[in-house]
Amino acid sequence: MTATPIPQRLARVREALATAGVDALLVPSADPHLSEYLPAHWQGRQWLSGFTGSMATLVVTAEFAGLWADSRYWEQAETELAGTGVQLMKLQPGQPGPFEWLGGQVREQGTVAVDGAVLGLAPARALREQLAGRGIALRTSEDVLARVWDGRADLPSAPVYAHAAPYASESASAKLERVRAAMGEKGASAHFIATLDDIGWLFNLRGSDVPYNPVFLAFALIEAQRARLFVAPGKVPQALASTLADEGVEVVPYAAIGAALAALPDASSVLIDPAKVTLGLLEHVAPGVKQIEAVNPSTLFKARKSAADAVNIRRAMEEDGAALCEFFAWFEQAQGREALTEISVDEHLTAARARREGYVSLSFGTIAAFNANGAMPHYRALEGACARIEGDGLLLIDSGGQYLGGTTDITRMVPIGTPSLEQREDCTRVLKGMIALSRAQFPNGIASPMLDAIARAPIWADAVNYGHGTGHGVGYFMNVHEGPQVITYQANPAPHTAMREGMITSIEPGTYRPGQWGVRIENLVLAQAAGSSPFGDFLKFETLTLCPIDTRCLLPEALTAEERGWLNDYHRTVHARLAPLLAGAALQWLEARTAAL
Amino acid sequence: MTATPIPQRLARVREALATAGVDALLVPSADPHLSEYLPAHWQGRQWLSGFTGSMATLVVTAEFAGLWADSRYWEQAETELAGTGVQLMKLQPGQPGPFEWLGGQVREQGTVAVDGAVLGLAPARALREQLAGRGIALRTSEDVLARVWDGRADLPSAPVYAHAAPYASESASAKLERVRAAMGEKGASAHFIATLDDIGWLFNLRGSDVPYNPVFLAFALIEAQRARLFVAPGKVPQALASTLADEGVEVVPYAAIGAALAALPDASSVLIDPAKVTLGLLEHVAPGVKQIEAVNPSTLFKARKSAADAVNIRRAMEEDGAALCEFFAWFEQAQGREALTEISVDEHLTAARARREGYVSLSFGTIAAFNANGAMPHYRALEGACARIEGDGLLLIDSGGQYLGGTTDITRMVPIGTPSLEQREDCTRVLKGMIALSRAQFPNGIASPMLDAIARAPIWADAVNYGHGTGHGVGYFMNVHEGPQVITYQANPAPHTAMREGMITSIEPGTYRPGQWGVRIENLVLAQAAGSSPFGDFLKFETLTLCPIDTRCLLPEALTAEERGWLNDYHRTVHARLAPLLAGAALQWLEARTAAL
Repeated sequence: MTATPIPQRLARVREALATAGVDALLVPSADPHLSEYLPAHWQGRQWLSGFTGSMATLVVTAEFAGLWADSRYWEQAETELAGTGVQLMKLQPGQPGPFEWLGGQVREQGTVAVDGAVLGLAPARALREQLAGRGIALRTSEDVLARVWDGRADLPSAPVYAHAAPYASESASAKLERVRAAMGEKGASAHFIATLDDIGWLFNLRGSDVPYNPVFLAFALIEAQRARLFVAPGKVPQALASTLADEGVEVVPYAAIGAALAALPDASSVLIDPAKVTLGLLEHVAPGVKQIEAVNPSTLFKARKSAADAVNIRRAMEEDGAALCEFFAWFEQAQGREALTEISVDEHLTAARARREGYVSLSFGTIAAFNANGAMPHYRALEGACARIEGDGLLLIDSGGQYLGGTTDITRMVPIGTPSLEQREDCTRVLKGMIALSRAQFPNGIASPMLDAIARAPIWADAVNYGHGTGHGVGYFMNVHEGPQVITYQANPAPHTAMREGMITSIEPGTYRPGQWGVRIENLVLAQAAGSSPFGDFLKFETLTLCPIDTRCLLPEALTAEERGWLNDYHRTVHARLAPLLAGAALQWLEARTAAL
Repeated sequence: MTATPIPQRLARVREALATAGVDALLVPSADPHLSEYLPAHWQGRQWLSGFTGSMATLVVTAEFAGLWADSRYWEQAETELAGTGVQLMKLQPGQPGPFEWLGGQVREQGTVAVDGAVLGLAPARALREQLAGRGIALRTSEDVLARVWDGRADLPSAPVYAHAAPYASESASAKLERVRAAMGEKGASAHFIATLDDIGWLFNLRGSDVPYNPVFLAFALIEAQRARLFVAPGKVPQALASTLADEGVEVVPYAAIGAALAALPDASSVLIDPAKVTLGLLEHVAPGVKQIEAVNPSTLFKARKSAADAVNIRRAMEEDGAALCEFFAWFEQAQGREALTEISVDEHLTAARARREGYVSLSFGTIAAFNANGAMPHYRALEGACARIEGDGLLLIDSGGQYLGGTTDITRMVPIGTPSLEQREDCTRVLKGMIALSRAQFPNGIASPMLDAIARAPIWADAVNYGHGTGHGVGYFMNVHEGPQVITYQANPAPHTAMREGMITSIEPGTYRPGQWGVRIENLVLAQAAGSSPFGDFLKFETLTLCPIDTRCLLPEALTAEERGWLNDYHRTVHARLAPLLAGAALQWLEARTAAL
């Protein structure tokens, strides 16, 4: 079956809008769970525009179709939108975004439609504010695409499974007690959760409804005496449902969430995280029910890994490091002997991980980016449009795996031929930033964005900077991007971003030179108690990631004694932890690449 | 005349409250200009409680009188409140503050009174929220103290004078044009200013109504065709008033501000800074006038010193540095030969400054604090209660001057006898923090709180921290504490805190060991353009303060090569700039104290 071309899809949507008396349709890139990866069922923005990037917002009116995307996506969007009739609207500071555009361009007293089920509460508020000035109505009760989207995918139906001991160190019932205590502190009689990582963590369940994140589509509604898990019938095996029942969890149909929210009694109160629920779901809640807004308690709890979790994570890191050594050993001997591409790197690296104990899947799509491709932080090589790895330069590999005992995420720079002096300067400077934050000690509970300057200072010193964050939280056999902590000076250091013992965070400074090359070096670190002094409690980082940092990309003489000491210590640790898991070429590679500077 | 004891004052206030039907009186530490230094007329909190510290909030009911103060003031408050009948309420995180106390303790439907003229808009909103829950009314229309305060001081009446060329580099009319342009951007037809530093800067005027800050009591109301300055009659000399008239500024009576605000026409709009105006003043504005809230444009403008200002500031820094050298030369020869106290340090240092060209006054009360006294960051020595400087240890001197060409603020550590190893470790660590931020380069416009970790990282590394900010903005012959920039990780990095070229900021890390000693080292720095790269525009700091950092307090071997290089460079600059102004013992002292490490 050949897909209908975009212009025909747009024409049919426009007919539907005219019939419904709607002036403009807004199609965000979101699902009812505000997930990073959307099931195909909710990829309406892609279906209607042809743009395959992960973040963009589409607006369609009778006369206009425009897609707002930020600068990372402009090149890709211009290619993909050509001939579709959809215009690229460059999202940038000082320029009107889609909400401002709607507020200014739709006729007074007109109507904008959006599927409320996929519109976050915070953007919904911002949109309403933009529309209010000119009396424009917002219709959220209907998914207009549903009328015209032929061949729309069903919801994913992968089975749900238990994440059991020894990998889960706390029972679902114990976690529920902690959540209920937090509800009590906020004065909430009920708590509605829509985010899949929160739900998976809370109930010690995993799934595979989307790529990379081991989650399943679900909602949860927690009350003092009841905990309901809303999952499509058939996804939870009977035996697992019985286990859950023993933990005080009822499994009910996914589609029943609206009615359950509507049935919350008058004068009760429901705790919701305004950043983690959609308007459409909340519209089921009766006006008499008080909505209490706070960060989901489970988000704060799951960010702090227990000592038992940390033991498993260190094991997973060893498995992941061993896979990387095996891959790199193959890669080095293959250079010059076979044609290597970014795709073949991805294939071999994925295969090496797949052989490791506890491996479940990748934690995100591998980024293997040679020279100029590395300058695009979100580059993905495509079959037939990927670089041959040959000549001189730098290969950037950002990859990670999901293991039953943890989630990994690592970026390493690989020298190809002879990297230039400037390339080695960039790698060295980026490493200095990573080492500075890796070695840092800081007050317990500091707002994590405040730590960013420690990593960036050595990079800013040479008038260099990078546009992405330095660090993101990482889940425990869960999403590779999980808050609440985030290390970037452009983030709001709200109280819930506090860095606490047990949090796992990436440290991944970079440098991107468009059209030339990109550098990023990334480890995961675990926040550990560093003891108390008369000045308070302090934290420090334990580096979790285990894989050599290729010194052939560096200028050793530009490292300080402390930096060289850190790198040699790190390589000693990497060797000690990985050597027992390796043999042959992989072990030889480890020996060579962990030699002291 | 003997002052009435506090209990009698409280009794008379309670009578007045009963007569007025008020359940509780709130007395903040503020004036209608939300100034740091309050004229005696507005020191009602001190008059009614006996507490002389600068920050505290008093609540009086029929049965209770309590003073909320933070931990810096507990020791002092316990002493001063003894026998007054006023209870110390320790202000600390997690404990109810005065607003929460009022909301919880005053009877339902009761009445709380506060003089709205001295209640900031932001606290007023917070207070109203606390009171609303139990239907408690807030009465702001009357100053209850006025009925019972015998011998209350009149408003200060010092003359206003011009801050003229060459010290003022931009005319008042040119500054007014910039403010009007900013009003236009916000859509405001009028702009009300209550803060004295904004007013002094805008009109190129200075005064001496309060100690240390060269300001005068005034309000300003700017409209498209009019600019009115509200000052008490007689304070602006006739000739100055004529000059102001030529610049388009009308001088009108201070007391006329209420009527002027009340006369703003319906459907007009007034720009106000919610952090810089009081509720009482705004209550004059008719409900039909739109209030537009933003940071005062003058606050943003005056923070960025012009190149011409910077020339004058560098001259003032040389004068200040020369005064310090003369003082230190005297101090060193006097040690062991005469009895030295913290007070005699203050006297001699003030006298040395007073001899310099352009000197007007101190910019704040000198802190000379020996050993344990240095552990109190806000310590002030008092005649009869100050330390003798003898034996071994550290003397902390934090001082500054107002010069026609700039405002200074400097902290230096002075070795007395032989400082201990631990004292020298503390000084060295603090210096490392100061050097790290002094040498830093960073993106233009970064939120200034985000820079703090650069100064603190070397200090945190040893599990040490300090409870005050690392840096505050400094005015130009104006207040020694002026925003909007502030370098502290506990501040909100709002957009208006952006670090911009021309801003002057202190860098003053410290270490405080209660009962033992305190360390702080402070320079003022000027943000300068550091050029552009493909990664954006960068800023760096020029160190403005010129005075040796006594290396006898340091452990030179604990400094890195870069740190030692910075210190030697700094001392070379200090020598080159100050030697031409000095002779005799002061010059000899400079030579000795700027010797390379």
